[in-house]
Amino acid sequence: MTSKTISLAHGSGTSASQTLIDELFISAFKNDLLATKEDQARISLNHLTADGNQLAFSTDSYVIDPLFFPGGNIGKLAICGTVNDLAVGGAYPRYLSCGFIIEEGLSMDILTQVVHSMAETAKAAGVSIVTGDTKVVPRGAADKLFINTAGIGVIPATLNWGMPQIQVGDKIIINGTLGDHGATILNEREQLGLMGALSSDCTPLNGLIDQLRPIKGIRTLRDATRGGVNAVLHEFSQACGYGMLVEESLLPLSSPIRGICELLGLDPLNFANEGKVVIIASEDSAPDVLDALKSHPLGSQAAIIGSVTQNPQVYLRGLYGVDRILDLPQHEPLPRIC
Amino acid sequence: MTSKTISLAHGSGTSASQTLIDELFISAFKNDLLATKEDQARISLNHLTADGNQLAFSTDSYVIDPLFFPGGNIGKLAICGTVNDLAVGGAYPRYLSCGFIIEEGLSMDILTQVVHSMAETAKAAGVSIVTGDTKVVPRGAADKLFINTAGIGVIPATLNWGMPQIQVGDKIIINGTLGDHGATILNEREQLGLMGALSSDCTPLNGLIDQLRPIKGIRTLRDATRGGVNAVLHEFSQACGYGMLVEESLLPLSSPIRGICELLGLDPLNFANEGKVVIIASEDSAPDVLDALKSHPLGSQAAIIGSVTQNPQVYLRGLYGVDRILDLPQHEPLPRIC
Repeated sequence: MTSKTISLAHGSGTSASQTLIDELFISAFKNDLLATKEDQARISLNHLTADGNQLAFSTDSYVIDPLFFPGGNIGKLAICGTVNDLAVGGAYPRYLSCGFIIEEGLSMDILTQVVHSMAETAKAAGVSIVTGDTKVVPRGAADKLFINTAGIGVIPATLNWGMPQIQVGDKIIINGTLGDHGATILNEREQLGLMGALSSDCTPLNGLIDQLRPIKGIRTLRDATRGGVNAVLHEFSQACGYGMLVEESLLPLSSPIRGICELLGLDPLNFANEGKVVIIASEDSAPDVLDALKSHPLGSQAAIIGSVTQNPQVYLRGLYGVDRILDLPQHEPLPRIC
Repeated sequence: MTSKTISLAHGSGTSASQTLIDELFISAFKNDLLATKEDQARISLNHLTADGNQLAFSTDSYVIDPLFFPGGNIGKLAICGTVNDLAVGGAYPRYLSCGFIIEEGLSMDILTQVVHSMAETAKAAGVSIVTGDTKVVPRGAADKLFINTAGIGVIPATLNWGMPQIQVGDKIIINGTLGDHGATILNEREQLGLMGALSSDCTPLNGLIDQLRPIKGIRTLRDATRGGVNAVLHEFSQACGYGMLVEESLLPLSSPIRGICELLGLDPLNFANEGKVVIIASEDSAPDVLDALKSHPLGSQAAIIGSVTQNPQVYLRGLYGVDRILDLPQHEPLPRIC
């Protein structure tokens, strides 16, 4: 790329934008579908279909600030987030779109790093970025860079994971420590001085979730991003009409996160994660789920953290056995967390 | 909605964002897939598939300023743009995702109007909005509202429209007047005082494109948005290696647009459209294409505007028969046109 910064011309459909698309995006994301340069990717349905298979379709926009953080950047996040949203539905993620909204003046070097990180993460997750769009807005009309990704995956006919399957007595399981992403961003943003101790857990979870497919008794999965595990438990509770009881003593927490939470009076259940999945599974199948998770590098600290109750509330059993209701906070601790 | 303005909490994954999703988005876009509230829409493949069918997948972000303009608004545009990007590939557009990036403080009334316009346009185009995402950024981090849509459609096995099919001698056809969208936004933005005379052509084109399906000899279609017809001709030329000759006397232009262009020295071929499709068709089939277009309300001013040449350049034959090369402008006349 000869330009050092992004100009309005890079988003204009003119020669500068063609150059950006050819030399950066198509070159980094290289695949046959993207290279056709048609207005839409054209995906053969033959290899997707078998009787009863379903298509999974999901989207997220990413507006995280700062763009780079320990453990990742907005590009890696934009791939992981949508891959994970597909995978928690039981889908094999396959194809992604990406839409860039870039502030005029962004350094080409930053954009290039972000795009290469997207390409690398997509490769690691086994997905192809097959269609995209670039808009550039004048200085001040957006903050540096926003990315939207949408994704397509295939849910095999044999799976039927979903919130309506949740039953009383089911176990609540998580694949590792809580709050790493949220605490990392908080630390960066508020200069808490915990450099080195914290790193975002941002990662594609589809490889881990593949381990769970053969297990009977899995009800539903959800990645615990914005709003943390607490938001997921509330979604589950609202959708199935039962309650969710988690036990404080069972929550996997790293020591720096435990420290930050005690220091600032924050609850790790409300912190965002970008590599954690909450699983509801029947009591019978819970040990198998735990074994499957622990057999994978992303699940080495997996734990059963609670169970589904008839009492339709989300609540936390404290270290001394006292239960308190976990409200969904009206305000998230941190804007632009993802 | 009880809130009058959007706050950061509306994008936080907490109770305020749940309310916004339930009371505005799910209520406006109502369909069974969206209502499951899973992280991904789950689409049955059975009704999509037949041997050789392909999936079309496309995305665009919309950053237009102003949000409302004669003939449309950002919401209508966000549906039309992605529907059209699918339809020009021969696809029947079916499912859309949408991602909102909202500036804190946006009036709820504006967001509601935009969302209802999206719902109405989606209904008119026969597509369902089945998955979505909302982010709210602090004041000043984005300008009012950006929307991304991604879309899925099905391309029947019988169609094979695409740029590699273009041949020398083919005709270049458009379904109506040039530059209505671009001129309307220019007028709004620069206060040129042509209120009432101009209106964006923003519309879903899939109904019109349905008329073209039975015609043999259609090579490829492209909607002429950012960069105008000129940008499309350059894309065609680059992809097929032939040239594109358009004749000034054949270009359909409304009188206000002709006036604006003469006054400001602008070329209507560079102006954005949001309801115009450029069609390349064999010389034999061109009359049938023209008839099919004219039989539809969106094609009443359709015209053959030129032809594909061996000489691999994009050029304009002027009113006195002199040819000049149409360069792709380095700068688009107007940022944030779509």
